[in-house]
Amino acid sequence: MISRPARPQVRSADDYRDTIEQLLRPLAARPVESVPIAEAVGRLLAEDMRAPIDLPVFRNSAMDGYAVWAGDVAITPVRLPVTGVVAAGDTGEPLAPGTARKVMTGAPLPDGAQCVVPVEDTTAEGGTVHITRGRARGEFVREPGSDVRAGAELVSAGTLLAPRHIAALAAVGLASIPVFAPIRAALIGTGNELVSPGGRLRPGQIYNSNGIALAAALEANGVRVTGVEHSSDDPGQFRRLLRAAAADADLVITTGGVSKGDFEVVREVLIPLGGEFGSVAMQPGGPQGLTVVDGVPVLSFPGNPVSAVVSFEVLARPILRRLSGLGPVPEYELPLLGAVRSSPAGRRQFLRGKLVWKGARPHAVEVVSGPGSHLVASMAAADVLIDIPAEETEMPPGTAVRVWTL
Amino acid sequence: MISRPARPQVRSADDYRDTIEQLLRPLAARPVESVPIAEAVGRLLAEDMRAPIDLPVFRNSAMDGYAVWAGDVAITPVRLPVTGVVAAGDTGEPLAPGTARKVMTGAPLPDGAQCVVPVEDTTAEGGTVHITRGRARGEFVREPGSDVRAGAELVSAGTLLAPRHIAALAAVGLASIPVFAPIRAALIGTGNELVSPGGRLRPGQIYNSNGIALAAALEANGVRVTGVEHSSDDPGQFRRLLRAAAADADLVITTGGVSKGDFEVVREVLIPLGGEFGSVAMQPGGPQGLTVVDGVPVLSFPGNPVSAVVSFEVLARPILRRLSGLGPVPEYELPLLGAVRSSPAGRRQFLRGKLVWKGARPHAVEVVSGPGSHLVASMAAADVLIDIPAEETEMPPGTAVRVWTL
Repeated sequence: MISRPARPQVRSADDYRDTIEQLLRPLAARPVESVPIAEAVGRLLAEDMRAPIDLPVFRNSAMDGYAVWAGDVAITPVRLPVTGVVAAGDTGEPLAPGTARKVMTGAPLPDGAQCVVPVEDTTAEGGTVHITRGRARGEFVREPGSDVRAGAELVSAGTLLAPRHIAALAAVGLASIPVFAPIRAALIGTGNELVSPGGRLRPGQIYNSNGIALAAALEANGVRVTGVEHSSDDPGQFRRLLRAAAADADLVITTGGVSKGDFEVVREVLIPLGGEFGSVAMQPGGPQGLTVVDGVPVLSFPGNPVSAVVSFEVLARPILRRLSGLGPVPEYELPLLGAVRSSPAGRRQFLRGKLVWKGARPHAVEVVSGPGSHLVASMAAADVLIDIPAEETEMPPGTAVRVWTL
Repeated sequence: MISRPARPQVRSADDYRDTIEQLLRPLAARPVESVPIAEAVGRLLAEDMRAPIDLPVFRNSAMDGYAVWAGDVAITPVRLPVTGVVAAGDTGEPLAPGTARKVMTGAPLPDGAQCVVPVEDTTAEGGTVHITRGRARGEFVREPGSDVRAGAELVSAGTLLAPRHIAALAAVGLASIPVFAPIRAALIGTGNELVSPGGRLRPGQIYNSNGIALAAALEANGVRVTGVEHSSDDPGQFRRLLRAAAADADLVITTGGVSKGDFEVVREVLIPLGGEFGSVAMQPGGPQGLTVVDGVPVLSFPGNPVSAVVSFEVLARPILRRLSGLGPVPEYELPLLGAVRSSPAGRRQFLRGKLVWKGARPHAVEVVSGPGSHLVASMAAADVLIDIPAEETEMPPGTAVRVWTL
């Protein structure tokens, strides 16, 4: 169970995000599930993984060549009879002194073999091999456990599993891997005026893009989306969808219905359930709500598509990435290419911007949006949010600003 | 159909990768498929996407407030009768001069309305509103098409679709999106000595990790894996698996069976099919093969798990990322934390390394592997490959080296 949130009145975006983070923190202790290793990439490892076996498992050759006793090649050139070839997986008889056996890279060495002479330093002649350069004891021999010893830690708990981790875990024979269950989030968009993409708009209607956009953003940040629903402005329908979503998710995000207007179904239903609705000093994304329903945090974002995406980026994404074991959102401090004008005083503004590259490094940022929160097209063109502090209203070109990658 | 490769004898990794790139280049012209917008994130857009409608679709309010004629609020304070509320999706009657109508953010404006007075500058009094600050014509009015005009390009062909693109495409009502089919790759690991993870090892056997590791690496780089097979050293079995893999993939990757040993099933089957096998001047990953089977390029990597992963990283990943529309592999030039000793002359070496961070930037790189190609455990600990030029054999601490992120 998660406790009730502190009151979110008008406050800074950072303060408000801290409150959300406190509510979401219990999700760090999520259930552990076992997944087949082939499906474990991108998952967050739940336990330290130790090697159950030595690696290499057996003494083997580091080269294609001839296994020999070291004393037999102390003086070269020398000619030795070849007693066969070690096939992968079959060592054969122990190696007698005064003889050589052909081995391939990775093949087990016969008992008695002390070093391997690479094939480049030999000439095969009938049943014998002519060796032109000697090797000392241990050369080109891989000893058991020289890579990793049984019991040694290979990958530690909390690692986001990359292909290279999968390679190591598979090489020691692990078939299933304990990982944290992903955070599960449900989405509910609200509004009578919303029509699904592909449908026909009647007058006054708009397309419902928030569910699709936020689901994509959640999945891209390690969260499993359990449902994307649309509610009309009917409180009964919204309440039913909300309870169903909360029953099956760790987090619910609603969009729309949060401002001070008269048809605000989200406020209407959630305030009686203890929801706190107020203004966050940011633009876009000012009107926000936070409720705990049946123990599940419910974030209520504004319905405008850009406001909803910016709310997610500023208020939820950094927390969800941390909880999912993903790296922090990349940030830069860069000079503005153009000027910023008429940013609202007292509200931190998140302009949409585009990085300007010089070779492999961004060296400036260009504003691609006005302050209007409805500019979806410019959102598509942007690759960063530009963070304009609350107290700034004008910034000349060249001013250093903080940007967050989208 | 893809033509036969040029002869890959002993040559540099860059030359060899160029040959592979020529073979794979026709994959840039892959089939286009239509996917539901909810599944389009991470896919490569195949056509320029234009907005089929204006956005906003209709003239709407940028604020919660009152729609009025501009002349009626030219002198304030003023009191106007309120003729109802615009519900989302329902504009109602045209607005008569001398009256006001309550509107919510995003709601359509009634015909005749010229500006919106924000609710903060008003007091509702029974059926009238007291307005304390006037607004000019057009203020807080969002005109149709002011975000994007019908016909304007929203997202261009070749864009890797991020959540922000999905948001824009959904907002203009697009339900399905034309994307390039992903590159399809099949994997075949070879060797009698291989046992699947989870199985029991008999003497001389090792776990088969290459298929799982390379499948994870391929998927992480935008490639769809159509199959992961294991072949014994029996040429008939390998040949059958190879034909089946080529029938259903754009690219086949084999592991093992490429060195000059006696049980090299991959060489044995592919050389008669025109395969060119030779050495690439790199370590690990020296022995390589390249064949075109039934028009499908077949890359033959060595079987050692670290050699296989490094072969993928150096010879295939940059090409596959480019073809899949992903960004280039991040590279840095960083000073070595320790010394590099006894790097082989004449072979470019790829050591496994770990970035050392100072705040948000890497400021050095530490070697975590010896040159031995069998060190799977150090691969798990590494996050970069350190590129040691062929001519270098020793490098003191502080030497600047090029590193590639894994």
